Amino acid sequence: MASNFGTLFRISTFGESHGVGVGVIIDGCPPRIALSEQDIQHELDRRRPGQSKIVTPRKEDDRAEILSGVVDGHTLGTPIAIMVRNTDQRPSAYAEMQTAYRPSHADYTYDAKYGIRAVSGGGRASARETIGRVAAGAIARKVLQSLFQGYEAVAYVKTIHTLTASVDPKTVTSGQVESNIVRTADAAMVDPMIELITAMRTEGNSVGGVVECVVRGVPAGLGEPVFDKLEADLAKAMMSLPASKGFEIGSGFAGTLLTGLQHNDDFYMEGERVRTRTNRSGGVQGGISNGEDIVFRVAFKPTATVLQDQKTITNEHEETVLAARGRHDPCVLPRAVPIVEAMVHLVLADHLLRHRGQMGA
Amino acid sequence: MASNFGTLFRISTFGESHGVGVGVIIDGCPPRIALSEQDIQHELDRRRPGQSKIVTPRKEDDRAEILSGVVDGHTLGTPIAIMVRNTDQRPSAYAEMQTAYRPSHADYTYDAKYGIRAVSGGGRASARETIGRVAAGAIARKVLQSLFQGYEAVAYVKTIHTLTASVDPKTVTSGQVESNIVRTADAAMVDPMIELITAMRTEGNSVGGVVECVVRGVPAGLGEPVFDKLEADLAKAMMSLPASKGFEIGSGFAGTLLTGLQHNDDFYMEGERVRTRTNRSGGVQGGISNGEDIVFRVAFKPTATVLQDQKTITNEHEETVLAARGRHDPCVLPRAVPIVEAMVHLVLADHLLRHRGQMGA
Amino acid sequence: MASNFGTLFRISTFGESHGVGVGVIIDGCPPRIALSEQDIQHELDRRRPGQSKIVTPRKEDDRAEILSGVVDGHTLGTPIAIMVRNTDQRPSAYAEMQTAYRPSHADYTYDAKYGIRAVSGGGRASARETIGRVAAGAIARKVLQSLFQGYEAVAYVKTIHTLTASVDPKTVTSGQVESNIVRTADAAMVDPMIELITAMRTEGNSVGGVVECVVRGVPAGLGEPVFDKLEADLAKAMMSLPASKGFEIGSGFAGTLLTGLQHNDDFYMEGERVRTRTNRSGGVQGGISNGEDIVFRVAFKPTATVLQDQKTITNEHEETVLAARGRHDPCVLPRAVPIVEAMVHLVLADHLLRHRGQMGA
Amino acid sequence: MASNFGTLFRISTFGESHGVGVGVIIDGCPPRIALSEQDIQHELDRRRPGQSKIVTPRKEDDRAEILSGVVDGHTLGTPIAIMVRNTDQRPSAYAEMQTAYRPSHADYTYDAKYGIRAVSGGGRASARETIGRVAAGAIARKVLQSLFQGYEAVAYVKTIHTLTASVDPKTVTSGQVESNIVRTADAAMVDPMIELITAMRTEGNSVGGVVECVVRGVPAGLGEPVFDKLEADLAKAMMSLPASKGFEIGSGFAGTLLTGLQHNDDFYMEGERVRTRTNRSGGVQGGISNGEDIVFRVAFKPTATVLQDQKTITNEHEETVLAARGRHDPCVLPRAVPIVEAMVHLVLADHLLRHRGQMGA
Repeated sequence: MASNFGTLFRISTFGESHGVGVGVIIDGCPPRIALSEQDIQHELDRRRPGQSKIVTPRKEDDRAEILSGVVDGHTLGTPIAIMVRNTDQRPSAYAEMQTAYRPSHADYTYDAKYGIRAVSGGGRASARETIGRVAAGAIARKVLQSLFQGYEAVAYVKTIHTLTASVDPKTVTSGQVESNIVRTADAAMVDPMIELITAMRTEGNSVGGVVECVVRGVPAGLGEPVFDKLEADLAKAMMSLPASKGFEIGSGFAGTLLTGLQHNDDFYMEGERVRTRTNRSGGVQGGISNGEDIVFRVAFKPTATVLQDQKTITNEHEETVLAARGRHDPCVLPRAVPIVEAMVHLVLADHLLRHRGQMGA
Repeated sequence: MASNFGTLFRISTFGESHGVGVGVIIDGCPPRIALSEQDIQHELDRRRPGQSKIVTPRKEDDRAEILSGVVDGHTLGTPIAIMVRNTDQRPSAYAEMQTAYRPSHADYTYDAKYGIRAVSGGGRASARETIGRVAAGAIARKVLQSLFQGYEAVAYVKTIHTLTASVDPKTVTSGQVESNIVRTADAAMVDPMIELITAMRTEGNSVGGVVECVVRGVPAGLGEPVFDKLEADLAKAMMSLPASKGFEIGSGFAGTLLTGLQHNDDFYMEGERVRTRTNRSGGVQGGISNGEDIVFRVAFKPTATVLQDQKTITNEHEETVLAARGRHDPCVLPRAVPIVEAMVHLVLADHLLRHRGQMGA
Repeated sequence: MASNFGTLFRISTFGESHGVGVGVIIDGCPPRIALSEQDIQHELDRRRPGQSKIVTPRKEDDRAEILSGVVDGHTLGTPIAIMVRNTDQRPSAYAEMQTAYRPSHADYTYDAKYGIRAVSGGGRASARETIGRVAAGAIARKVLQSLFQGYEAVAYVKTIHTLTASVDPKTVTSGQVESNIVRTADAAMVDPMIELITAMRTEGNSVGGVVECVVRGVPAGLGEPVFDKLEADLAKAMMSLPASKGFEIGSGFAGTLLTGLQHNDDFYMEGERVRTRTNRSGGVQGGISNGEDIVFRVAFKPTATVLQDQKTITNEHEETVLAARGRHDPCVLPRAVPIVEAMVHLVLADHLLRHRGQMGA
Repeated sequence: MASNFGTLFRISTFGESHGVGVGVIIDGCPPRIALSEQDIQHELDRRRPGQSKIVTPRKEDDRAEILSGVVDGHTLGTPIAIMVRNTDQRPSAYAEMQTAYRPSHADYTYDAKYGIRAVSGGGRASARETIGRVAAGAIARKVLQSLFQGYEAVAYVKTIHTLTASVDPKTVTSGQVESNIVRTADAAMVDPMIELITAMRTEGNSVGGVVECVVRGVPAGLGEPVFDKLEADLAKAMMSLPASKGFEIGSGFAGTLLTGLQHNDDFYMEGERVRTRTNRSGGVQGGISNGEDIVFRVAFKPTATVLQDQKTITNEHEETVLAARGRHDPCVLPRAVPIVEAMVHLVLADHLLRHRGQMGA
């Protein structure tokens, strides 16, 4: 349903931006996985606003509280509920939103659908909804790491606006990504990207870009052949993120410029292991992982909140001008990195459980 | 699960390429919708191999038989089962596949997952699996048309390899698309695209491209706010199609080259109707339709079956060469058009039923 | 949804009594399970009308055709579709039903829900719908037997009207049950039960009764702790059968006449194995199997089709009398036995797959 | 999944008895339903331990906190999360349980399934898990009442041990039920039942019984025809409650003692309304409501916690004696009444939303 994700490793998120809090229930998690609030907090801190000068200055502590499902530092196999209380609420900053629909936000569509909305803070459409995903993703990763040696997902900023980082997915490390506040992995692009974002903040404008992600250590065989193809579930996961407008795996859109002979990934043996010489498939063939790195990209539009006056309409359908005010996040990309990784973990943990349910191992 | 799609308007497909037949069950269809086998057959004929000189010469009659759920030309509200018997089976043509894994096909990954596979014809990974989707999509469209005046989805070939059609999503008609065997809507590009595909067939090579789709007549309010965003479910639907490698909605990847001020879609009133001046959102905001046209694109890789020798390995993990032979489809794009439309209908019919389940109208 | 059952081992049934045919898709079945049409046919023959003098004389051959998912006698892990064509249709015998609602049938409620119904043969409410369940159950049993040594479900007629068979669930065998056409396991009750059913047929009346079922060879640990308790899913499965009015497990309703001290099942060790001295829990504690035999009972009402005139209303809401005519089944109990077993297999196969999905073995 | 219930009106419960708290997320609730914490608190108070001298003396305040999904006293249509913090934890009282499996509790089966369990308080198997159900049920009832005039579910204690209340489901009122601490509706049985329960408490023993429930104001047409029959989903809901061992609807097990001619419910017209002269169907025919009162019964076993020494085994599989100590609830029936009602509301709200999703009204 709307706020559920996954079949066996299944999460339900809840919470508005300006209510009591936001959170998540994870159901179906294997038992006896070591888990602490620190495991979760580490990822929440990577997602947190206010962590650097280039992201939104909202101050959110985002302290994870585990409400259930964990005893003595181990999962019980029963639902794990996690809550993060909201703290930095400034309803006054949002008074104007009550009547004016912000362009390219979800204000109008929520009203069109529900006939009511949590005006303050954007409700469920707020980026705070992703807190539950990140918390759950931290747990999914522990499940995957307990079973797949060398499992890791490394996401990084590939482009911001017209700036493109040169990164080799084969070798990029999370250390490289975390070494800079943009979360890119091309040292030469760090400063230009920071400058661009800073300039955008100054002028009350915003930029988008592309996050690329490589997933290592996934054995061949995960995924499903028809509707729940691994790339289909990854696409859904990524396109469910706020501000995402595109998804591609392996060769993606650029792959349409190759011919079949150029595009095919020939098989060969590397010792005992089946390999492909190239990886235009992006680690998935026919919906099922082939043991190569899974590589995909997600396009995020420029943030819709800008600090300049914009023409719009009110909820009474009168034309009006939305005045610029408040805080804004000139670029969501650096904070999108841990969220993309979280969604990868959630998709793969679910497919892992589904696979061994049917296959037995 | 693997072969199910949808929550309320729900389909289950079955069938291997070379078994008895392929088909689908549609569960949750509203009752009292007029439906005939001709409604379904018309769409199957658009999907059918052998319909023109530029697609695979496989001869498949693909006659739809409605097994249940329809009496006296109207749906009963109970499961509609549809079967298409397989006819043109040439197991001998596939003997070599039994041992050699075809590059960039699903042969290896099926073996890795299941430890067994329907060698002949590609099993579930065959494009024949989409017959069930197309049949179900024809029914979903009738449901949507019964409720939304002016509802239609028009897909068309936007690019093949480096050839790009110039098409305006606002005005393109299905008549234009069906007027040529490439199913593009730029008259100037028809012959070049046919020549390219013909040349590819001659040299045993293949090409991919991009299908664009515009959906009209969807009112504001369909979709869900978090995981089951309309764009997320469309992305999953499209990325579950054979050979698809990318999905983007509205401004998509190119939208990352704009700033927020350039990208935002300002609201205005057109008489009584809420409109946006631009449509970079692609008809969806925050996961919910805003009443504008829904516009998205899907990238299809060049067909993996090529008629030249390729290096690969056997299922015993010996290196080998897969000799070129058999039939092949040098470009799936023309036949992908009705399949993309079918998936749109399935996604929207499901969201329509979900919406009125929760909202009551 | 309405016609789906199960989470991982998942079936979808389709078909009206008097349409082209009825059938089922099984999705999620483990691969490499030996399976033939004979395996399925054997169970369909146990369910078949006309198999003995005490059941309905409708002649239905009920030949199972496997449409997909099986190659060379082994499951592929992909959807298994099975169809049984309808043969013995006598629409003329049902003409009156077109206007008169049969008492205690689903004619009126289908019209109330759908505003349309497959008049002839009862549509989905016909007992023929259970063909798909029985076919799928035969496959589920093979999955369970491949993993649990000694797994078996033995159902039998416990009571018919006021006649009660004396059967010990601990020792009853399927051979005893299949040795007589009533499918009871108390030799002394066979003739009285046959005589009662025969008398009911003669007077155009009908009787119901209770089927008891014992399931052996289920290890401790299957089931889920909250909503999907094993007894809850068994209850749903049994209460979804036509004509069932009650379900109880272990001590059931009679257990309310004991005190806690009388009712509790003390644990002890039988060698290495955890056992309980009594089994009032019926093999399930807190929703999870404890390794003891699972024992439950299902109440089936007397068949609603009787051959005497009955007062009722028409679909135009006029009062009328439904004249007695046609064929009828004076007692569904003997044929319910294989259907109850099939539903047990379906519930347990699904829980088996779910269990090993989460737990890994 | 394990801790989810419902398809469109869907709940997920979480929480162990002795952790931080217990709670529930309700997803899919219609928007703009008036809802306050008092609406929920009222039902929690009916479920609360310590509310009278005949139930467990555990003191639990059970204050409901709405965390999300409600603004200005109205539902938003987004997930409603509710938490109740645990207060009265006495881990010391449960020390012995750490090693000894309590007979007819879920201690052993949890260990068999998960290899770990929340020893203190029984974890998820605790009756505290039902807090989330009751809170969600209070909301489901408001949804139903907003649409069905006269909708109500009245449950009451029908029997305790051998004491049977004489109650007419047609006329029983919730006022009668709430007028006494046993929650029965036969004034003559109140004192005998209280005396029995008190005697049981004194001797450290326990008793079970039967709760009967009548649901009024449900129009014809709710339910589904095959697996998700209304009686099947009610059965699952009730059999998922702690300590329930049986379910029957309408004539139930006793109906097997009637013949078909005696059992059938003849239709007649009561003005414009379709009625049946009798209601042995219990308000449901073929899985779908027929507009008559829905009447069913649930059997609850005597509480497994007794205050006398019991033979059992340890988690090391050594035989031992579990000494009597602690608090116990000699009879769960009075507190089961609001829980049964809550489950009814949840089942019907879900079927209501599913019905109008498919049918449109």
